[in-house]
Amino acid sequence: MTDVELTKKIFDRDRFVKLIGAEIIELDAEKAVVRAPITEQCFNANGTAQGGMLYTLADFAFAVHANYIHPMTVTQCGHIDYVRPSKPPYVVAEAREKVRVGHNTVSEVILRDASGEIVCVCTFNGFVKDVDRATLVEKFQ
Amino acid sequence: MTDVELTKKIFDRDRFVKLIGAEIIELDAEKAVVRAPITEQCFNANGTAQGGMLYTLADFAFAVHANYIHPMTVTQCGHIDYVRPSKPPYVVAEAREKVRVGHNTVSEVILRDASGEIVCVCTFNGFVKDVDRATLVEKFQ
Amino acid sequence: MTDVELTKKIFDRDRFVKLIGAEIIELDAEKAVVRAPITEQCFNANGTAQGGMLYTLADFAFAVHANYIHPMTVTQCGHIDYVRPSKPPYVVAEAREKVRVGHNTVSEVILRDASGEIVCVCTFNGFVKDVDRATLVEKFQ
Amino acid sequence: MTDVELTKKIFDRDRFVKLIGAEIIELDAEKAVVRAPITEQCFNANGTAQGGMLYTLADFAFAVHANYIHPMTVTQCGHIDYVRPSKPPYVVAEAREKVRVGHNTVSEVILRDASGEIVCVCTFNGFVKDVDRATLVEKFQ
Repeated sequence: MTDVELTKKIFDRDRFVKLIGAEIIELDAEKAVVRAPITEQCFNANGTAQGGMLYTLADFAFAVHANYIHPMTVTQCGHIDYVRPSKPPYVVAEAREKVRVGHNTVSEVILRDASGEIVCVCTFNGFVKDVDRATLVEKFQ
Repeated sequence: MTDVELTKKIFDRDRFVKLIGAEIIELDAEKAVVRAPITEQCFNANGTAQGGMLYTLADFAFAVHANYIHPMTVTQCGHIDYVRPSKPPYVVAEAREKVRVGHNTVSEVILRDASGEIVCVCTFNGFVKDVDRATLVEKFQ
Repeated sequence: MTDVELTKKIFDRDRFVKLIGAEIIELDAEKAVVRAPITEQCFNANGTAQGGMLYTLADFAFAVHANYIHPMTVTQCGHIDYVRPSKPPYVVAEAREKVRVGHNTVSEVILRDASGEIVCVCTFNGFVKDVDRATLVEKFQ
Repeated sequence: MTDVELTKKIFDRDRFVKLIGAEIIELDAEKAVVRAPITEQCFNANGTAQGGMLYTLADFAFAVHANYIHPMTVTQCGHIDYVRPSKPPYVVAEAREKVRVGHNTVSEVILRDASGEIVCVCTFNGFVKDVDRATLVEKFQ
């Protein structure tokens, strides 16, 4: 099982991410790219993507990348700035690590809609638990 | 139609909040309290409430309160600190405004699980659009 | 040496806090209150208290309280929302812990000017190192 | 007077930035780079650069860049993640805008010490006031 396969197996267990239809598009040492459709079920009262759905996608991108490059990482803090409404048909989140020192990792996540325009800018601070690979494989395979 | 009824009508249109089963428990000038069940559909890979679901509930509490006390308010930034896992059967979010000056409002949202222990601490910064009540009633009734 | 005295001794070593003239006004299990004068040396280009000076005072309030209730605590993340300009003669910051779980503490800090109006709302996330008291006394007495 | 000169003139009035000895190193459409010495006056109780001093430098980098590319911009929220201590002799902050939409701008600021290692990662959300150039020139020349 490759590291990408292991990471995908872990997040196959994330039920909430499944609920919003998010999926992993790219995953390598540099970045994770995830995508979710903007359907009626994730509309807010104004008929655009709900803020919590956007945050969920951002956190998913961060979690996928952080857990791929140094498992297991849990989110300590998340920060999101909204700059414009997110319109259908989908939104893409790209996570890149800015720095990792010891048990701490800080990453940036940028959300763009289908037109390529940025809709949100996020920062996540994660705590790296340094679980060994064998333990993860046993738990999630 | 009372202001509480109007606010509830507005958020009846929020499809994503419905998806997670969140509901308004209390709403007055001091605070908004909202609650959502922690069911399997909102589990993360570790079987506890997913971080995005928790953020969504927090943002919902903020949005309900801010739009009740000064419609319409949109979230500019959200910040969440996670301190412990959120276990079933439910999580409650309580929003209180810290300060409002002109078009800006800053609120705190505290999330607690069923045991009453704090699981997340959040801050939201909203932009108040000052839409008049008649426009809202017409749009959402 | 009481715990308050020990905490004050520790922060007597904080040269940057001295530079802005900040001092501890109140310190107990519930809160820390610190104050700094708004003099010309801390003006920004518009002649009001500079944003970094305000953040510094907020972080000082957090650090004093967190290190008093569970030494040693280091700031992992700081978040500040500015809502109005801070005018002379002084600004006061009050820190209160929201929650502590294991090595993590999350606190709120509210800044008010001399009129009592809120000028900033802050959240700090600290990592508690659990240094024993004897070590601190030896280092800072 | 060029735009760079105008921006420098504006920040010549920032007394607090002068107090920490910060100066503008680079300024163009892509980024602002500012630097400050880490001297004893900015030490915290542990003899490394104080967290408020680091935040001040980050906010300065943001303010310089934001006011250069679209004057006048005021900070609405600042967020800082600390990842390692900042040692002498100096620290450098580089600000880059991530996105601007209407009155809102979101920028990233990265702080590095003299070794080039990242010490802090920051996000700033600014409100753009759209003051015309002639007004600024008159006020700050």
